[in-house]
Amino acid sequence: MRKTFKIKASDSHSSARTGIIHTPHGFIETPAFAPVASQGTVKGLPHSLLQTLGAQLILINSYHLYLRPGLETISRLGGIHSFISWQKPILSDSGGFQIYSLSPLVKVKKEGVEFTSHLDGEKIFLSPEDVTDIQIKLGSDIIMALDHFLPFPSSEEKMKEAVNLTTHWAQRSKAYFLQHHSPQLLWGISQGSVYWNLRKQSIEDLLEIEFDGYALGGLGIGEPKSQLEETIERADSLLPKDKPRYLMGIGFISDIIEAVERGIDLFDCVLPTRNARNGTLFTSKGKIVIKNVKYAQDQRPLDEDCSCYTCKNFSRAYLRHLYERQEISSAILNTIHNLHFYLDIFRKIRQAIQSNSYHRLKYSIIKKKEE
Amino acid sequence: MRKTFKIKASDSHSSARTGIIHTPHGFIETPAFAPVASQGTVKGLPHSLLQTLGAQLILINSYHLYLRPGLETISRLGGIHSFISWQKPILSDSGGFQIYSLSPLVKVKKEGVEFTSHLDGEKIFLSPEDVTDIQIKLGSDIIMALDHFLPFPSSEEKMKEAVNLTTHWAQRSKAYFLQHHSPQLLWGISQGSVYWNLRKQSIEDLLEIEFDGYALGGLGIGEPKSQLEETIERADSLLPKDKPRYLMGIGFISDIIEAVERGIDLFDCVLPTRNARNGTLFTSKGKIVIKNVKYAQDQRPLDEDCSCYTCKNFSRAYLRHLYERQEISSAILNTIHNLHFYLDIFRKIRQAIQSNSYHRLKYSIIKKKEE
Repeated sequence: MRKTFKIKASDSHSSARTGIIHTPHGFIETPAFAPVASQGTVKGLPHSLLQTLGAQLILINSYHLYLRPGLETISRLGGIHSFISWQKPILSDSGGFQIYSLSPLVKVKKEGVEFTSHLDGEKIFLSPEDVTDIQIKLGSDIIMALDHFLPFPSSEEKMKEAVNLTTHWAQRSKAYFLQHHSPQLLWGISQGSVYWNLRKQSIEDLLEIEFDGYALGGLGIGEPKSQLEETIERADSLLPKDKPRYLMGIGFISDIIEAVERGIDLFDCVLPTRNARNGTLFTSKGKIVIKNVKYAQDQRPLDEDCSCYTCKNFSRAYLRHLYERQEISSAILNTIHNLHFYLDIFRKIRQAIQSNSYHRLKYSIIKKKEE
Repeated sequence: MRKTFKIKASDSHSSARTGIIHTPHGFIETPAFAPVASQGTVKGLPHSLLQTLGAQLILINSYHLYLRPGLETISRLGGIHSFISWQKPILSDSGGFQIYSLSPLVKVKKEGVEFTSHLDGEKIFLSPEDVTDIQIKLGSDIIMALDHFLPFPSSEEKMKEAVNLTTHWAQRSKAYFLQHHSPQLLWGISQGSVYWNLRKQSIEDLLEIEFDGYALGGLGIGEPKSQLEETIERADSLLPKDKPRYLMGIGFISDIIEAVERGIDLFDCVLPTRNARNGTLFTSKGKIVIKNVKYAQDQRPLDEDCSCYTCKNFSRAYLRHLYERQEISSAILNTIHNLHFYLDIFRKIRQAIQSNSYHRLKYSIIKKKEE
């Protein structure tokens, strides 16, 4: 198995580590956060501003891009990097989550998943091979194997079936991927919710198949925090140290801090960008809901400790005005701030692990939020 | 009368000239285009990108900002430049146009204008002194006196009354302004539509009162092009060369080219920004309606001759995709392009006048559009 991940430093008090994921479009320093660019753009930000913020990679959505503009268009335009003019690493979501959450009619069979497009009701069938093929053709750097995602809570019996199907699909995804000798990375997704026996089985199945990286899927959807943390901790002891681990869709800073401590390397979430558009801003002192009338004449920046363009130039009063007027600039300036906040925390996380002071950082972040 | 305008070069074949308007927040090289920032932001662009495009000034809307967030808030936050964090020149529209076009109920009296807010139906009365006072307090660099605006067509009789009222209000605006010893510039607006006898009277009245600059208002709202051009041409012979002239709200490039030739120095219009958001892009070869299916796989930039960020990085196919997905990035990238297109033409206009080759530029622009 080729090596696409290298650990640079490990925390001596926990499983936190920094490392480098090598991809066809350059490397990603971990722990890393992938801003979500479902349709090939981070909502509210042109790529130039996203790069200024230090984003190392973005996450695109195979499901959305497969439906529109379609694979043919993206292929003709030279693949996803060329189509969207983003030359850094791109991770593509398999689309499993979107199929289950957006499609009005889904039939899951052993062969694959049959669903109706949420756009026009067209009936579509996708096998795990199809989903792998779509991502090979998109040309994303990290391909996610199709998994079977269930809501929380689901019965142990149903979850067992989902895990078995996920394993079966993972095998087929890997077999298909191997035929194509692609320099792309293929990562597997484990399921099993917080049933440890099932999560364990799922991870062990994936390990046997061998992937370039391992994701924990189906989490952050309502299960108790303690069980989430326990699952990550147990997974940490099961997963090989020399492969990157990805906790899908989880975006609360408090969860991220705990997950990094338990050996997670990669995160993605719509939280910073969606909240920005809804006027909820993250700061080192807690959340700001900018539409609140108490900010109408507040001359201070969102966060006095923040060095982003928004905080260096604009008052809460102006940001509130833009939000209330539904100006596009509101979404832009808020997104700059929230993404800067996230990417900056990840920079601090990497530095802290490097200097073996992760615990100090952890408690300073938690303490600041409680002040 | 203080001098706030200086001519740098005059075209030998026409009335086109380049000059400099000095304002409390720096100078404006003319002919200049003011992007519209009604609510204190150009729609779709953070200030940093607007400055990269070379915008010299922006136009804000007294009416909108007076209603929300209100004068008190803006004053407390240090005036309009401080509130919106834009340190270059700002021109404030008097709000006359908005009162007549947005308010459901308007009563025009000699004393001023009574109207109901389009937001909450509140009854508001504003005298020309009030409107001047609002702009003094906003702290904009160029203040426009309140005028009486009529739709096109209006009868000669009604227009005569509007001109008389505009003169009366202009006198009172000037008198009020003089009491405040402000370094701001006060410009007057002439009315009279394309009735030359009335427009002439209106201009002569304003000249007698003396302003720092003279605007032609009530044009570009349906009158025939030939009559528009004739009105500007005749106004040119009446207005002193050493004062700046402003053709309000007119934004078609073809009109701008003709107006510069007839001695106009300043323009503003929502056209480039509004069209950008609606997916209509200006190029040196004519308009592009980006949603058109023929661009779905078009790898070319919007305009091969354009050096803007959008054209240097993105294909028509990607821009169409963003527009179709209603991504905020669509508005941003399109606005960058359209504003660059406008501001670039104004740079070329100034260079051409400077090198006494305005006619060559004029015909190259007209010819390119016809190709």
